[in-house]
Amino acid sequence: MIPVTKPYLPSLDKYKHLLDGIYQRHWLTNAGPLTKELTIRLEEYLGVKNLLLVSNGTLALQVAMKALKLPEQSKIVTTPFTFVATSGAIAWEGHQTHFSDINSKSLNLCSEQLLEHHQSAEALMGVHVFGNPCDVNKLDALKHLFGNKVIYDAAHAFSVQYQGQSVLNYGDASTLSFHATKLFHTVEGGAIVFKHNDDFELAKQIINFGLDNQGQGLPEIVGINAKMSEMHAAMGLAVLDDIEFIIAKRLALIEQYKHLLAGVVEFQQWHINSQSNGAYMPVVFKDEAELLNVLTALNSESIFPRRYFYPSLNTSKAFDNGQRCPVSESIASKILCLPLYVDLEESQVKIICKLIIQNISQ
Amino acid sequence: MIPVTKPYLPSLDKYKHLLDGIYQRHWLTNAGPLTKELTIRLEEYLGVKNLLLVSNGTLALQVAMKALKLPEQSKIVTTPFTFVATSGAIAWEGHQTHFSDINSKSLNLCSEQLLEHHQSAEALMGVHVFGNPCDVNKLDALKHLFGNKVIYDAAHAFSVQYQGQSVLNYGDASTLSFHATKLFHTVEGGAIVFKHNDDFELAKQIINFGLDNQGQGLPEIVGINAKMSEMHAAMGLAVLDDIEFIIAKRLALIEQYKHLLAGVVEFQQWHINSQSNGAYMPVVFKDEAELLNVLTALNSESIFPRRYFYPSLNTSKAFDNGQRCPVSESIASKILCLPLYVDLEESQVKIICKLIIQNISQ
Repeated sequence: MIPVTKPYLPSLDKYKHLLDGIYQRHWLTNAGPLTKELTIRLEEYLGVKNLLLVSNGTLALQVAMKALKLPEQSKIVTTPFTFVATSGAIAWEGHQTHFSDINSKSLNLCSEQLLEHHQSAEALMGVHVFGNPCDVNKLDALKHLFGNKVIYDAAHAFSVQYQGQSVLNYGDASTLSFHATKLFHTVEGGAIVFKHNDDFELAKQIINFGLDNQGQGLPEIVGINAKMSEMHAAMGLAVLDDIEFIIAKRLALIEQYKHLLAGVVEFQQWHINSQSNGAYMPVVFKDEAELLNVLTALNSESIFPRRYFYPSLNTSKAFDNGQRCPVSESIASKILCLPLYVDLEESQVKIICKLIIQNISQ
Repeated sequence: MIPVTKPYLPSLDKYKHLLDGIYQRHWLTNAGPLTKELTIRLEEYLGVKNLLLVSNGTLALQVAMKALKLPEQSKIVTTPFTFVATSGAIAWEGHQTHFSDINSKSLNLCSEQLLEHHQSAEALMGVHVFGNPCDVNKLDALKHLFGNKVIYDAAHAFSVQYQGQSVLNYGDASTLSFHATKLFHTVEGGAIVFKHNDDFELAKQIINFGLDNQGQGLPEIVGINAKMSEMHAAMGLAVLDDIEFIIAKRLALIEQYKHLLAGVVEFQQWHINSQSNGAYMPVVFKDEAELLNVLTALNSESIFPRRYFYPSLNTSKAFDNGQRCPVSESIASKILCLPLYVDLEESQVKIICKLIIQNISQ
């Protein structure tokens, strides 16, 4: 069986050794030493500051919105071509999702369309979809023009650079997901990177029940529990040791896919000022019929790519608000993410590509 | 150093053995086999059904409110004498906290006062404080009288029985916290026990991004990520093996405290139809001056009891809405939870009690 993804497992001995330390210290959660160590190492590796580890990537979005003090029921412009968590977090926090269509090549928010939608919005939530950076300079310019907040859902964009620095340094806040299936993971987990120190300090309080961090630990503001445990931080430390190997292996597989499928399917156009981090392998078919044909053929050989992201959220039962986004709807109907994980073998990629080519309408 | 609490650590070998299985299965989160096993074992041990494991006890409250479909900005009657998470979850979900005062003996919501507040509320959130059951029959009667929803924050009430059955079987939903410091724990974690199967099924969707559980996994409703990981479920399984020993040891320490401090301080009055689960060791002093005197003396010997729960939430910066709750305010000013954990030795309890007796004003 070839799944679309498989969690990366670092050395079990190393993970167990980290566990020994947790047992010795008797410190299992609540900003423990491994969580602190992971924070420092991630800030250094990613080239960011004000990084806050949290329990998962969806909570990262929820906490970011609270820390940026968005007014109640804010209108938030976002993309319909993303994982459900982006719009889910907006709606859960009581805000209004306003979809803006995507560019058919980058698969990110289309800057021209945004201009129209952005003016009346309190905030913008961009998504670096499949790790490909949004047009962050244009989006940040809109922010300065209209004075609203910008959050980037960077769930896929671990280690992505843009114009020579981390893409996480743009906007007011960027959020990461460290779910088990991600390039870098902590079993369940996530992080927020804040531009401004004040927002970061507020978020630290928010994820610890709103207790006063400095003084006596009394309830000062409204908060929840979004803390990362030491068991999860330990996994992050072990995975981070191997991150260069993980990315190199994934990029090599992507190269192989692209070589074998050139001219057969379309690929996402990566931003000219950035390079792929090897997070996903999306391919765009001519139409949904072609996709379904290929999918059936692959499934019958126990190969399970996934329809990321289907359907376009503006047409989903949960988020259909009557808005139409023709580009996103079209892309969502004919895009497939192919299997991509460190253990995947070149011979398996060959088989997958051969099946795709055989089952595509010419 | 003697802290107020210390996480219970089950056999490290056993935990590592469970990890081996996780590595072999390559299944780290998303309703994995250990999470399923823990669900079944907890349902059996506690004598409940419709138990849903979640990432932490605060999310348990948040998800419970959503699953019970409380109207937006509901008025929720609750106690000011509880951990901040109770009111925090209510406020985070956009509802209005309405405090009702407590009984000075049980330290739980006072049924008589409730009658007055309850009629105009959409929901009641009772707290079985320190594990002591609320007057659930009266509270459930109010529910039938006024047709509103009842949620019990049972964060402290693991394994508590009431009239011969689990106290978790009362109300529309009860939530548990499995934080590392709790009687039973999963590092970080929690659970919701639902009375009605429909609410349970809805909550299962909510904690997995609102995706359709039965069909194709498409976004059907608004949801978030509140899943428990396999690393955390593994800890739960290992702790659950030792639960009878844990409870017996804690109850023995409580007995010793009560014996040594009889007539010196006041104890919480446990409900006549129930028995302590050994979760906490709260003692009530004559006044705050006496408490501070004792606290200073204990701290100077590196003994750190904690002021659970101080201040009464209606007077905290985060939740002061102008309501006065004189009983809760008075209790909060003079109650202290004494050290209580499995490793605590009888000789240490003796020292603590001796210091208390020496430093109390006669």
